Amino acid sequence: MIKVAIVGFGNIGRAAYDAISASEDFSLECIVETREVTADVPVLSSVSELKNIDVAILCLPSRSVPDTASSLLSRGICTVDSYDIHSNIYEVRSKLDVIAKENNCAAMTACGWDPGSDSVVRTLLMAMLPKGLTYTNFGPGMSMGHTVAVKAISGVKDALSMTMPMGSGVHRRMVYVELEKGADFDAVSKSIREDEYFVHDETHVIEVENVDMLRDVGHGVNLTRKGVSGVTGNQRIDFNMTINNPALTGQILVSSARAVTKQRPGCYTMIQIPPIDFLHGDINELIRKLV
Amino acid sequence: MIKVAIVGFGNIGRAAYDAISASEDFSLECIVETREVTADVPVLSSVSELKNIDVAILCLPSRSVPDTASSLLSRGICTVDSYDIHSNIYEVRSKLDVIAKENNCAAMTACGWDPGSDSVVRTLLMAMLPKGLTYTNFGPGMSMGHTVAVKAISGVKDALSMTMPMGSGVHRRMVYVELEKGADFDAVSKSIREDEYFVHDETHVIEVENVDMLRDVGHGVNLTRKGVSGVTGNQRIDFNMTINNPALTGQILVSSARAVTKQRPGCYTMIQIPPIDFLHGDINELIRKLV
Repeated sequence: MIKVAIVGFGNIGRAAYDAISASEDFSLECIVETREVTADVPVLSSVSELKNIDVAILCLPSRSVPDTASSLLSRGICTVDSYDIHSNIYEVRSKLDVIAKENNCAAMTACGWDPGSDSVVRTLLMAMLPKGLTYTNFGPGMSMGHTVAVKAISGVKDALSMTMPMGSGVHRRMVYVELEKGADFDAVSKSIREDEYFVHDETHVIEVENVDMLRDVGHGVNLTRKGVSGVTGNQRIDFNMTINNPALTGQILVSSARAVTKQRPGCYTMIQIPPIDFLHGDINELIRKLV
Repeated sequence: MIKVAIVGFGNIGRAAYDAISASEDFSLECIVETREVTADVPVLSSVSELKNIDVAILCLPSRSVPDTASSLLSRGICTVDSYDIHSNIYEVRSKLDVIAKENNCAAMTACGWDPGSDSVVRTLLMAMLPKGLTYTNFGPGMSMGHTVAVKAISGVKDALSMTMPMGSGVHRRMVYVELEKGADFDAVSKSIREDEYFVHDETHVIEVENVDMLRDVGHGVNLTRKGVSGVTGNQRIDFNMTINNPALTGQILVSSARAVTKQRPGCYTMIQIPPIDFLHGDINELIRKLV
């Protein structure tokens, strides 16, 4: 059994809990959460109290992942996370890689669906069609990373960031906000549009009275590549999904928690991991069934 | 530079040649082919003459792959192949794994698109949706493995085996044969339908005057999984492609020839290989670009 802790018991943490419950090779030892939560395992208030676990599954807002992962790795505890700020993943991985190696443990970062499983598909498509263009089209769907980023902005009581696919990998962000009493909409709107999560996309901020009535965690992706194998063009491949977003993210984190126990010390992204390592079961049986 | 030899210079061997030409990290040292062929590198008549190469890319009919791979591995030469008899892959891999380890070299088997890249997708989908059903629907398109198997049957002058998707992973085989003078159609038809390649599928054998007029190497796949992440159902993912079959197979063999040089001794299927290993370039740059 792989002994795990869930760190952060929000949407993703609860989804990770479900994925652990549905797996036969995990034992959930505890949850770390500062807010009041009910659970059938001990709830600790700080990661500093964690001990006797194989992997900590970090279900925290991306921006607090690097520090928490660093502190756990420096104590020799393996971590997995779904850090999703694409432009910083390389840097975060390099930093955690050093700490993991120094402390003889392993970490996996950016283990969601994008970054994550989509990254694996993009890599596979490059191996199949080395020349050509890949477009990743998201949505329509709620972006959890973007929504969390908006909620962190002063004056925002509740928020929902929808990602709209405009084709060719271009997206529009539709941000619905419920304001704190007295908050200035124009200032909030400006803060959102200047945030690192939104600054590169067409972003519309809309004030609403009740964000909750708009909330649906469904999401989707259309990942497409048209390219060349050898010298032969017009090779066309696409990958589509329509999914419950936290459920898939929680599942991938748990599958990654399994994979990380099989790696040598260091920090890895999903494209650096043999796909079979994400699965439970005998290697020969898996080959017989899946290859 | 990775020094490679192409063993077998038919459809797949020529496609591998193209993929090598389009890559900057390979040097094609020679081709092994018993038939008369024209090429801009030395053509050897036997694998026993091979020396000073890193990887032999086996572009042979599946049935001659295990023996050829064994003989090269026993001389410490890495191999990659696109062996495609699904029911025997596990056994072939186990056998080659022992020989590769004994001789301190590495091999990859079943490196085409199915088995191959589709296997990677199937494995990834299992990590994302552990419970549920996957269906792999092929075609319409010419199956090279099946066509080669028919051509090997006595009385067959030329052949084309088309795979027709009937949904839910069920396929019909439409086999077009041009007979040798005096051959008995009923006997040929029976031999085809009883062959390991055909015995599990609805197979129709049709005699035609000119197989060549039917030939098109386009193929396709629709790989679909509907399943459960954690406890959340109705997660839907599909992977589709429409491709030139030998061009993609040749490219995947060449990408695998790159990957095999990065593995520890043993024999691997594609699901056991970190996807990033199939690509040329700096690991950190690839992570920055693809994750």
